[in-house]
Amino acid sequence: MPLLVVGSIALDSVHTPQAEHEDLLGGSAVYFSYAASFFTPVQLVGAVGEDWPAEHTELLRTRQIDTSGMQVVPGEATFRWRGRYEVDMNQRETLEVQLNVLDRFDPVLSESAQRCPFIFLANGAPRLQRRVLDQVRGSRLVVADTMDLWIRTTHDDLLELLKRIDGLVLNDSEAKLLTGEENLVRAGHQVRQMGPKFVVIKKGEHGAMFFSEYETYVLPAYPTEQVVDPTGAGDSFAGGMMGYLAEQERFDAESLKKAMAYGILAASFTVEDFSLNRLRQIDRNDLDLRLERYRQMLRFDGQ
Amino acid sequence: MPLLVVGSIALDSVHTPQAEHEDLLGGSAVYFSYAASFFTPVQLVGAVGEDWPAEHTELLRTRQIDTSGMQVVPGEATFRWRGRYEVDMNQRETLEVQLNVLDRFDPVLSESAQRCPFIFLANGAPRLQRRVLDQVRGSRLVVADTMDLWIRTTHDDLLELLKRIDGLVLNDSEAKLLTGEENLVRAGHQVRQMGPKFVVIKKGEHGAMFFSEYETYVLPAYPTEQVVDPTGAGDSFAGGMMGYLAEQERFDAESLKKAMAYGILAASFTVEDFSLNRLRQIDRNDLDLRLERYRQMLRFDGQ
Repeated sequence: MPLLVVGSIALDSVHTPQAEHEDLLGGSAVYFSYAASFFTPVQLVGAVGEDWPAEHTELLRTRQIDTSGMQVVPGEATFRWRGRYEVDMNQRETLEVQLNVLDRFDPVLSESAQRCPFIFLANGAPRLQRRVLDQVRGSRLVVADTMDLWIRTTHDDLLELLKRIDGLVLNDSEAKLLTGEENLVRAGHQVRQMGPKFVVIKKGEHGAMFFSEYETYVLPAYPTEQVVDPTGAGDSFAGGMMGYLAEQERFDAESLKKAMAYGILAASFTVEDFSLNRLRQIDRNDLDLRLERYRQMLRFDGQ
Repeated sequence: MPLLVVGSIALDSVHTPQAEHEDLLGGSAVYFSYAASFFTPVQLVGAVGEDWPAEHTELLRTRQIDTSGMQVVPGEATFRWRGRYEVDMNQRETLEVQLNVLDRFDPVLSESAQRCPFIFLANGAPRLQRRVLDQVRGSRLVVADTMDLWIRTTHDDLLELLKRIDGLVLNDSEAKLLTGEENLVRAGHQVRQMGPKFVVIKKGEHGAMFFSEYETYVLPAYPTEQVVDPTGAGDSFAGGMMGYLAEQERFDAESLKKAMAYGILAASFTVEDFSLNRLRQIDRNDLDLRLERYRQMLRFDGQ
């Protein structure tokens, strides 16, 4: 089933202890779309500037990603993010953000985007995420991401959004910030009580936790010795998760757990190189092989 | 099969954001022994001072813990540790250490202790851990713990020890310190190349990783919303792990993974109250019930 994502499309400049790269293809909607495209057709809605390299759009089109909802806005520049990772790759510093075209981005969904049954609202202002929701009709599953900026600056807007979505994905520090609760299990359930039927807390290199009314669980990250660039890991996680759910056309407890696993594995590939470089080298079969290894890793016999 | 542990016996004073407690029963060998005693008979070797409350020894004796190797040293006081946890329970500050009787502790093993097939050298000076090894005969599995202090101050002694043990348990920051490697997967294997056949890296609330020649895996911590006092979690982990292996009388890959799981669950109970208070409320059946929930948590269907 088709999957809609609305979010940022970016040119990222990334500094790691090993290397620096300028103007890499990035952005939450881009990582999400690429990861999801291993599973299902994706409609990507976002905006770029005149400086956007056409080859990036071509790359996305080689996947089953519909880029007709990507607006190229005349007179504007593409959103740019510059960040630096410490030797401990969990520590990231944002050096520069140029909102550019995103400053006035107000997504208008096409007829087919409006009717997408699976929807992911990538990290963005809650007010904007809600304006997307105002346009959709007959959605089956709506999941959103958010970040500390919105929790701090547009808290009430975010609370309004939470009442209208099925699932929320956020990271551990954001869950603590949103709830004022240090224990992640309690924080997860408290976020759930703000509206979403389920909540996923991303823990970076430590995996992800899932919370619904009847379930609480944690799955570890896939252990990789090749962490080159963590940028986009969270969005790839969400893409793998939502892509699998859309492919399955269901989101029962069992599907959600397997979707979590695929999300974790999509992220595990993303961090193995800059930008989409590692994801571009793999196919669905690589994800499935790693899923099987992951499943074995987590399996031990009963009593 | 009997399991020997040599390590500290302590009176802990613990400050958490919620409470303060003085002179709690603690110490690495105590937490280890209690957790292991759910699975197998334990021989505890350590030293205490004249101030040691006899009731603590009685408590251990109610379990299958042989305390005949606990020396009460006249004219000495028991080892004392005082620490404070931040609101984020992963952050701990040691406020005070009184070595007292441990300052001159030089364990002499009894005949039966010398012949224990399963041995755990709890955190202690590597030179002292090696002196224990010099006394044992016919051991089948020797596992040691260590800490940053020994990595920094007695590095060469520690390297000597590593060549003589089958397994090493240490935490994530210690593994990074010992190897100079930030990536835990690489760090784990580098430690293994220093001697031990397997290495376990404890990640606190994020679980534990296992490394052997043929295996690399990570298991998450059991998600608990009741984290009262993390003191002793790592030693309880080691106790659950070694206790299960000694019970099974084997340490093949499958047994080791299940042992890791039991270790994680023993630790998950320990943190739910101060000292041994939570462990004292449970029995083997509680561990097995939680193991089954943990197993379900980590299970998802194949492709």
